[in-house]
Amino acid sequence: MSAQQQRRSRRTRQNRTENKQGKTLSQLPRQQLINPVAPTELLSADEIESIHRSSLKLLRDTGINFLLPEARQYLKQAGAFIEPGSERVRFDPELVESLIGLSPAEISIHARNPENNIIIGGNHLVFDSVSSAPNCSDIIGGRRAGNIEDFRKFIKLAQYFNIIGCIGGYPVEPQDWHPSIRHLEATRDFIFLTDKPLRGYATERNRLLDALEMIRIGRGIDETQFARETSVMTVVNINSPLAVDTVMAEGIIEMAKRNQLTIITPFTLAGAMAPITLAGAIVQQNAEALAGYMLSQTVRPGAPVMYGAFTSNVDMKSGSPAFGTPEYMKSAIVGGQLARRYGLPYRSSNTCAANAVDAQAAYESVFSLWGAISGGCNLLKHGAGWLEGGLCASFEKFVLDVDMLQMVAEYLKPVKINQNEVALDTIDEVGPGGHFFGTQHTQERYKTAFYAPLISDWRNFESWQEAGAPEAAQKAHSVYQQALSEYEAPPIDAAIRDEINDFVARRTAEGGVKTDF
Amino acid sequence: MSAQQQRRSRRTRQNRTENKQGKTLSQLPRQQLINPVAPTELLSADEIESIHRSSLKLLRDTGINFLLPEARQYLKQAGAFIEPGSERVRFDPELVESLIGLSPAEISIHARNPENNIIIGGNHLVFDSVSSAPNCSDIIGGRRAGNIEDFRKFIKLAQYFNIIGCIGGYPVEPQDWHPSIRHLEATRDFIFLTDKPLRGYATERNRLLDALEMIRIGRGIDETQFARETSVMTVVNINSPLAVDTVMAEGIIEMAKRNQLTIITPFTLAGAMAPITLAGAIVQQNAEALAGYMLSQTVRPGAPVMYGAFTSNVDMKSGSPAFGTPEYMKSAIVGGQLARRYGLPYRSSNTCAANAVDAQAAYESVFSLWGAISGGCNLLKHGAGWLEGGLCASFEKFVLDVDMLQMVAEYLKPVKINQNEVALDTIDEVGPGGHFFGTQHTQERYKTAFYAPLISDWRNFESWQEAGAPEAAQKAHSVYQQALSEYEAPPIDAAIRDEINDFVARRTAEGGVKTDF
Repeated sequence: MSAQQQRRSRRTRQNRTENKQGKTLSQLPRQQLINPVAPTELLSADEIESIHRSSLKLLRDTGINFLLPEARQYLKQAGAFIEPGSERVRFDPELVESLIGLSPAEISIHARNPENNIIIGGNHLVFDSVSSAPNCSDIIGGRRAGNIEDFRKFIKLAQYFNIIGCIGGYPVEPQDWHPSIRHLEATRDFIFLTDKPLRGYATERNRLLDALEMIRIGRGIDETQFARETSVMTVVNINSPLAVDTVMAEGIIEMAKRNQLTIITPFTLAGAMAPITLAGAIVQQNAEALAGYMLSQTVRPGAPVMYGAFTSNVDMKSGSPAFGTPEYMKSAIVGGQLARRYGLPYRSSNTCAANAVDAQAAYESVFSLWGAISGGCNLLKHGAGWLEGGLCASFEKFVLDVDMLQMVAEYLKPVKINQNEVALDTIDEVGPGGHFFGTQHTQERYKTAFYAPLISDWRNFESWQEAGAPEAAQKAHSVYQQALSEYEAPPIDAAIRDEINDFVARRTAEGGVKTDF
Repeated sequence: MSAQQQRRSRRTRQNRTENKQGKTLSQLPRQQLINPVAPTELLSADEIESIHRSSLKLLRDTGINFLLPEARQYLKQAGAFIEPGSERVRFDPELVESLIGLSPAEISIHARNPENNIIIGGNHLVFDSVSSAPNCSDIIGGRRAGNIEDFRKFIKLAQYFNIIGCIGGYPVEPQDWHPSIRHLEATRDFIFLTDKPLRGYATERNRLLDALEMIRIGRGIDETQFARETSVMTVVNINSPLAVDTVMAEGIIEMAKRNQLTIITPFTLAGAMAPITLAGAIVQQNAEALAGYMLSQTVRPGAPVMYGAFTSNVDMKSGSPAFGTPEYMKSAIVGGQLARRYGLPYRSSNTCAANAVDAQAAYESVFSLWGAISGGCNLLKHGAGWLEGGLCASFEKFVLDVDMLQMVAEYLKPVKINQNEVALDTIDEVGPGGHFFGTQHTQERYKTAFYAPLISDWRNFESWQEAGAPEAAQKAHSVYQQALSEYEAPPIDAAIRDEINDFVARRTAEGGVKTDF
């Protein structure tokens, strides 16, 4: 039985179970989301051009530090100006302009299960899962340092929920694997536990190359096909202000060489690593994003790059980053305008700074979603599970976010206007003072007419109180537990499994990658 | 000392106190909000016209029941078709078209303090306070039936917070006043406790007329000026499907006669009082809104009317209404398109179905806000305090909503793009690897650069935990208590106060209005 047949058989089995017991979680089907709503434009075309010109000026007069000599070499060859012995790279506006437009506006990302391939760009919209949190929590077990067991649970949730289109990265840092081999173990888990598109980490050149190689093996394809079919994403955070460190530059270079997707995301916190004014922070973000983009295009013109925005503000009293704020919303929307200015797909995030899955977590997240979706976001990173400004991956937040993402997906489904939907006959049949519960029009549609939420409690107060007055976080706890219990590992060909295991064994025997600790 | 002088003197005092102690709540200043963002258009112009045509067909072929003979008389005189002995009124499409466009697109609503006048329509945006909840709650005192004391507290909060532009109505039903004189007592409280624009209730003709008269007295103006300066709003909920009951029709008639604002809001819950399809529910909503509008315009062409939308869905398992759902968002946006089609100001609402001030309350509310604000809403009703689908006014939800409304207001402030804001010099001065905390550019702006939330807790997890791990609802509790302690009654001329008291005394002596109970 082929992997695909196995999958089909499993799915049939699953449907049977659902039909008989009716107890499995009800979720939206796997789908390629399209955002049909015209993006919000907070700035005029002139103002966007003004930001572009200011960014060119910044790149020409101030420049960007590239710490990796190899990166400076690429840029110098392309015509950038570098003083001898300096890390500072300055760009002539004409050079910048000549590199804009090379990278594709729309990119397919291939998963090891082709049914899970995604399209990034255009009006496509993909949500991923929380990544890179040092801690994780649930309301029963409390907050704890990242570990393998929780790492796996989050991957399973990301695989289980159809609304999650790809794996954002390590949902939580699996700290009990030694850093020298952590990337090998974590990537093996990715490949075995999920068949959605994956991320490699640009934390060091050899780590990234190992991850790329493993994901290629996982897909069962050769290097030529791998270079033709983008299969890995990485995030490169520019070291704001105005610096690209060694591992980030290595990431951009290796990804570009292999035609894999780099998501360039300056982390421009207004008031800390960027000017306190939104205009200033956005200009800096834009110049930094262009700098990363240009390195990529000088390595291989046309390498896929995504424009990432993460401009937010800090709490000026404590210096803590704030998320899901009005300032965050505005920069998420303007970020989208800039990405489209450069013909690049756009990455935004589902963020919050809350320490608990409370009202704050929810409103900061939905404000983030409002900014991201209105801004024409193509890939929403940290789509599900982010808490504490990214310092914690929360299991309850994960399913709360899944529910909210599903609501966004339903919101984006066009309203159908036709005779059957308008149903004048039914309105006439019911007439003044009647109700629609019993009509044929209702009976034919009531099971699927509306989005059925995972979390929202719509009982009246009395019934809710009798049931113990559960708040959303408690409901989310039981939903995540149920999802884990329903999770099934995706099938994998035995030969591929063996090859992955052999690769990890060999690289582990070699000592993995060198670490300082 | 005149009332205005008193106000000035009080404000100076207040500012002094703030400056010395620095402990009063920090809130946004009173302002007239403008929504500069182009409204989202979910439907094409053709689809909007199709809804319009279907509505005309429904009004022609099925018609609307008007239970009040006087209302039928007005409509018949204008050319509507009514079978003898029937309550059903049918409208020729030409009649409908002839009445569209008579009502103003923008209306000033006058408060007894002219500084609190508001503009409804265009790209103006006003938030009001929760209204008409039978119960209220706070997390310490629990849930209780509406009563005078809580009623007054909510009015004080609505007066205290600058973001609340007008009083939505009775925040909670003051059930300990007898229904025969409740409207007199409640309206007196309105006039004494707040100087923002007010609502009268269309629950019975004499009640409404009493309220109108009292609000006129409160403004200290004569009837001619009152008819020239719209000073009262009322909400008329069409009895969906397709009926306008006696008191609602009386409301439309009396408000139109006196040039006061009627907010026509069909309560079209898809699957219950309207078709289960959004298109059907929206067509019905639109026909019903037009029916109410037409009654108003046949009474007095040009009478101010607002287009209200409240289409949401019901939970098909329990029949409970759902709010802040994807379906709600879509109808909020399409409702705005229809209001603009008819040149009418647009009313939407800040809703949720949650039973607690938890994550659900927050996400349903922000999804509502997303729909309303993107939909070009001019008056957001139930702006602050709505819980349990309107069955409960919550003190904590009130300030949580105030915080969220303030965030929306900040989101709508345009991003300034100019040389000072872009601050290339400062970025150059800081350079790669630096930070912006100490720059002059930051120092000059850090106190006011970003929105300072009332509720959001941005401390890191450890500090937050040490402080007892307060969730948003707890923070909201202390904020509402503080706001109440800082509340000051607005000054009122003694002569006006006496006249109001005399009016209430006289009408009470007369027995108020007849009641059945």
